[in-house]
Amino acid sequence: MAWSRMPHSNNLKQRDKQSLKGIFFNAVHAPIGAHASFTLGARGRSGGLGLELGEPSLENIIIGLESRDRRCVEALPFMEPEQDDALKFDHEGVTFKWTPIEFFKDRAIRRVYHPGSDQWTAGDLCFTIHSQIAPAPDPLQSTDQEQKLAYCPAVIATIRVDNRQSDQPRRAIFGFRNERDPDNMRAIAEEGLVGVAAGQSRGFFCRHPGAVPARGFTFDWILSQTQPENLRQELGRNGALLLHVPAGKVETFTVAVCFYRGGQVTTGLATSYWYARYFSGLEAVACYAIAHAGSIKARSGEVHKLITQAGLNPAQEFQMIHAVQTYYASTQLLDCHGQPLWVVNEGEYRMMNTLDLTIDQAFYELKLNPWTVGNVLDFFASRYQYSDRLDTPAKPAGAAGGIAFTHDMGCRNHFSRPGYSTYERGGLTACFSYMSYEQLVNWTLCAVLYLHESGDEKWMETKIPVMKMSLTSLMRRDHPKSNERNGVMGFNGARTLGGREITTYDSLDASLGQACGNLYLAVKTWAAYLALRDVFLSYGFKAEATKADRQAVLAAASVVSSLKPDGSLPAIIGEDIPARIIPAIEGLVFPYVLGQYDELDEKGRFRAFIGALKSHLSAILKPGICLYPDGGWKLSSSRDNSWLSKIYLCQFVAREILDIRSGTVGPASDDAHMAWLLNDKNLSMAWSDQMRSGIAVGSRCYPRGVTSILWLRESRK
Amino acid sequence: MAWSRMPHSNNLKQRDKQSLKGIFFNAVHAPIGAHASFTLGARGRSGGLGLELGEPSLENIIIGLESRDRRCVEALPFMEPEQDDALKFDHEGVTFKWTPIEFFKDRAIRRVYHPGSDQWTAGDLCFTIHSQIAPAPDPLQSTDQEQKLAYCPAVIATIRVDNRQSDQPRRAIFGFRNERDPDNMRAIAEEGLVGVAAGQSRGFFCRHPGAVPARGFTFDWILSQTQPENLRQELGRNGALLLHVPAGKVETFTVAVCFYRGGQVTTGLATSYWYARYFSGLEAVACYAIAHAGSIKARSGEVHKLITQAGLNPAQEFQMIHAVQTYYASTQLLDCHGQPLWVVNEGEYRMMNTLDLTIDQAFYELKLNPWTVGNVLDFFASRYQYSDRLDTPAKPAGAAGGIAFTHDMGCRNHFSRPGYSTYERGGLTACFSYMSYEQLVNWTLCAVLYLHESGDEKWMETKIPVMKMSLTSLMRRDHPKSNERNGVMGFNGARTLGGREITTYDSLDASLGQACGNLYLAVKTWAAYLALRDVFLSYGFKAEATKADRQAVLAAASVVSSLKPDGSLPAIIGEDIPARIIPAIEGLVFPYVLGQYDELDEKGRFRAFIGALKSHLSAILKPGICLYPDGGWKLSSSRDNSWLSKIYLCQFVAREILDIRSGTVGPASDDAHMAWLLNDKNLSMAWSDQMRSGIAVGSRCYPRGVTSILWLRESRK
Repeated sequence: MAWSRMPHSNNLKQRDKQSLKGIFFNAVHAPIGAHASFTLGARGRSGGLGLELGEPSLENIIIGLESRDRRCVEALPFMEPEQDDALKFDHEGVTFKWTPIEFFKDRAIRRVYHPGSDQWTAGDLCFTIHSQIAPAPDPLQSTDQEQKLAYCPAVIATIRVDNRQSDQPRRAIFGFRNERDPDNMRAIAEEGLVGVAAGQSRGFFCRHPGAVPARGFTFDWILSQTQPENLRQELGRNGALLLHVPAGKVETFTVAVCFYRGGQVTTGLATSYWYARYFSGLEAVACYAIAHAGSIKARSGEVHKLITQAGLNPAQEFQMIHAVQTYYASTQLLDCHGQPLWVVNEGEYRMMNTLDLTIDQAFYELKLNPWTVGNVLDFFASRYQYSDRLDTPAKPAGAAGGIAFTHDMGCRNHFSRPGYSTYERGGLTACFSYMSYEQLVNWTLCAVLYLHESGDEKWMETKIPVMKMSLTSLMRRDHPKSNERNGVMGFNGARTLGGREITTYDSLDASLGQACGNLYLAVKTWAAYLALRDVFLSYGFKAEATKADRQAVLAAASVVSSLKPDGSLPAIIGEDIPARIIPAIEGLVFPYVLGQYDELDEKGRFRAFIGALKSHLSAILKPGICLYPDGGWKLSSSRDNSWLSKIYLCQFVAREILDIRSGTVGPASDDAHMAWLLNDKNLSMAWSDQMRSGIAVGSRCYPRGVTSILWLRESRK
Repeated sequence: MAWSRMPHSNNLKQRDKQSLKGIFFNAVHAPIGAHASFTLGARGRSGGLGLELGEPSLENIIIGLESRDRRCVEALPFMEPEQDDALKFDHEGVTFKWTPIEFFKDRAIRRVYHPGSDQWTAGDLCFTIHSQIAPAPDPLQSTDQEQKLAYCPAVIATIRVDNRQSDQPRRAIFGFRNERDPDNMRAIAEEGLVGVAAGQSRGFFCRHPGAVPARGFTFDWILSQTQPENLRQELGRNGALLLHVPAGKVETFTVAVCFYRGGQVTTGLATSYWYARYFSGLEAVACYAIAHAGSIKARSGEVHKLITQAGLNPAQEFQMIHAVQTYYASTQLLDCHGQPLWVVNEGEYRMMNTLDLTIDQAFYELKLNPWTVGNVLDFFASRYQYSDRLDTPAKPAGAAGGIAFTHDMGCRNHFSRPGYSTYERGGLTACFSYMSYEQLVNWTLCAVLYLHESGDEKWMETKIPVMKMSLTSLMRRDHPKSNERNGVMGFNGARTLGGREITTYDSLDASLGQACGNLYLAVKTWAAYLALRDVFLSYGFKAEATKADRQAVLAAASVVSSLKPDGSLPAIIGEDIPARIIPAIEGLVFPYVLGQYDELDEKGRFRAFIGALKSHLSAILKPGICLYPDGGWKLSSSRDNSWLSKIYLCQFVAREILDIRSGTVGPASDDAHMAWLLNDKNLSMAWSDQMRSGIAVGSRCYPRGVTSILWLRESRK
């Protein structure tokens, strides 16, 4: 079942008014690795062609059709009234009467949103956007043809006009207003290719005898021109394809929505887009995309099947589609001196390959294209690995430390210098402080996940030294003295300059923000030690395996020892704070994915640990603690601040690993989370992560929602 | 005398309040041919580093110095309170107390605005911007060194801090916030070069041991960092140089304000920047500009002398400086398959080489760099010349026509297709209609001006065929039948598609907007015929010379015959409309500049014509007709719509050619026009052209004000 509905349907048991609202949300349609998106769906000037933005481009989009009586053009509601820039030239100008543009009635509009396609039907018009929700081929293991298709920086729009009920020819219109590019909007009509494009970077292209490119100050001006020659004048920011449909006919127009940036793209480290080796410019992209529109559309078939046949409930399915679609806008495949470099930008923040996102997105990427995970890990290891000492109570940098990894590799197309992230600073105890320990855990776990899913044993062989250094570093960061270790992070890195390390939950209070003693991190660390152990065993390093396993046992014991009489675990081990957190259970996902089922066995050697986490979740997943009134999950009891991607992950752990499937874990919470995404205030940013009482306050238009892919692993009991 | 004053000085006999306002206007500091500018001077977020914009970039600029007590940083008032983007990351964040940024008191600020330099003094801080107001060397006739210097896309800022009165080290700060570039603001510290830059396109660079680059969310955040390491974190849009001055010392920091765009710059016809052959990127520009800062500063010496020693009144001098400075932001030297291509963009409209601007700017360009005029004329002749038929009352396209030239060559870095402008459309009778006749006159006059000023006889030899076609076309556009010609345009080109041609005054009523029978165009045509005659005589084409001269005589007679009893001439010859226009006299400038003094002789063969124009001007230069209440000139009696560039030109004609030097022609009008430019509403757009009652309503940030250079030709009686 696809997520689809009429605005006035009862799919989700919503009343008419609410469901009317329900179809007008932005969806992101992105090529793979082009850091670009055609975003559409929220009312008004909310979408557009975004190139290297962390948000929609906020440009008017017109998708319309002349009414049967040709009195007006009826359009989908994706534009706002336009400022007539002609007035900047002509202050004495008379006001003309242009062709009116009216919106289709809401009740006449139907939307069907699938993985890889988004279809709008209204009257005699059917408009569909197709993107590739599909594997990104490994450039070192695939043909040029495969890469050219997968990395072509375009999505396909098809416009079908059914003019059989009319005895008049009619025109459809598909255009955009260039608000972003200082270069001119231009009209292209060359060798059968027609198009409109903002400079060299963004455009709509078509090959159809009925398509004519048009330029002007406003769309109504364009529609009102009686002299065809005047459509080629080139003032104004608007460009559109006019699509002529004869009387009594059905016509389908295939339009390539194209993006391009040539030359050097990044600073700090100079790279270009990988696609630039296949395409010389926007027109080359267009020619290829139109010619291969069928293949582009077909590429999403597999994921489409995967998601829609998984038996998910409608709210789950919607969220998974929405998250996956949004993810691709952040992807960027770069050419670094001839080598591919995979980057996932961090949604609205646009930090590059943020490692605490990499690990969560790995569940998705390892399913579709494991090489991207290895690629990112390699680049972290070679450029963004560092070593620092540890602060002790007695002395700053008073103890030996070890390796760690940076939070990210850069921001907004700028690679930060080797060994340093864009984000981290010294002297802080909260947001923007260092995440050395968390990122060390993340890199380590991610590396083992990659090994497990890809089977790339040669790769791991080259990484064994790093794995060993990781173990050493984790243990020292637990405690410099071996006999005082408890398996949990105890010491901050010296780079904090007297501050304190934080976790990925950077804007939270100590419950999830503080790294030292953190329960979430403790369980993740437990998983990291187990993962390390298995790698060391496989490669014949018994002593290291033993150490790692012992650390896992210590970590589990520390967690168990902090259990409270009410069955819950405090957020900080060893500190008696009242905060309780859902992500305590997050780390359990790793042994599951790595197939270490014994370690998760409720009757196995970690039975007390697993039991404690299970009793913890049951104790806190209650209104007033870690549930919002609407049934949505609240990650920390002490703050109104929740991340959907982490909720998805923890839902999976709760249901599949801890076998908790009560109402609060199932469809009721899914409905609540879907309602968050469809809150009026969140509609323009597509899938967003960080929510306060259901309102996206950060991490908007974010890639991390693909953690939902874990749901496909669930046995549906 | 330079234009300079204390805010509270009485230079212009203004009261304190007015003159306080007087120094805070935007001035444009632009490299030559880079279509870029560092704009500064109006209060608030009004200036910034504009690359390929027709307006200021509207970015916060900080120029400040720690107060002697180091309690705060005192800054020039070129920024607005900043949004702290850290809040997008950190919703739980505490509010920190940053170093306060306060503005210097108005009365403590002094500004001196010279051609090529703009100096601000406040307290112990002295900030100066230097740009090259100097000739653009002919790429085909100059050395690489000359070109590298002249076309280096940078201006120089010097920051002098006098810390002799303080026993504490102090920091100055110079930075900007990147609001325009999707790429990150970055900090550079390499081999002695330090800088901050928005992506690959815009930045501040310095080589000084006391300079440190800093990045952050806000300037007060940057100023408050106690950990030097944290200045290198790379989130946020702000970048600044922190300039350390020891106690008791004076330090001067030389900062290169650099611009760069590599690769293909234009579409329609692919070109790159000429400077790209000398500079590989922003840092290369910076290294060169810093090393050659002295030469860059020195380059304005000649024009500086020219303007400041000409005996102009202060209002004239201010306007000339302001116009010349603004002009350069519109200039763009492109590399078209290895050949230089000079483009002047049209201010806020950014149309490229608008021909009705080219002719007016020629007075300036021919003085400094005549080759640019020849270059533009060549490109018009080869790509933007066309031929059309003429509409007759009986039949559209009913008569043979001839050649004409397009209004422009493109817009916003897009070259329009050959033979077509960006601007012109058919079926219109006002703004956006064709200007075929006017542009034919303009090209022809411009070509003869170029010959006269450059002495490039070989060039003209190659253009003789065009000159002959021009004569034929002008005569046919007068009247298809030779015996019905009156020297004045009578027929519209067929490209108007039933509309009517217009003039450069496109947004005016018939008095100046309509081309047929237009008095302004008639006198300009008279000048064109005289110019053609002399060329034909020089090159031995007597028959053509005779025809041209006869047409001039006819045109003059037509003008004279329309003289009214009150001594004025109606705006449209042969139509009894009440409108009266100042630009009737505009065309007289050409025989003057071409040295055809006999034709201007009040006792010569055109005495009736010259007399009529003189009596006309005297009759209309009166309040209620063509004077605003403030003494400013109103180009047409029938509309509140006036263009300063044309006023400057007509002032010159009135004083120098018609010998009318009454109060309304002299300093009183100059003061009024200067007051227009300094009206609160006009301050941000620097020099603007089109005014309604002194408010710039169009043609803002415009290059055409360089017509004022004609004033330097005046004998000051």
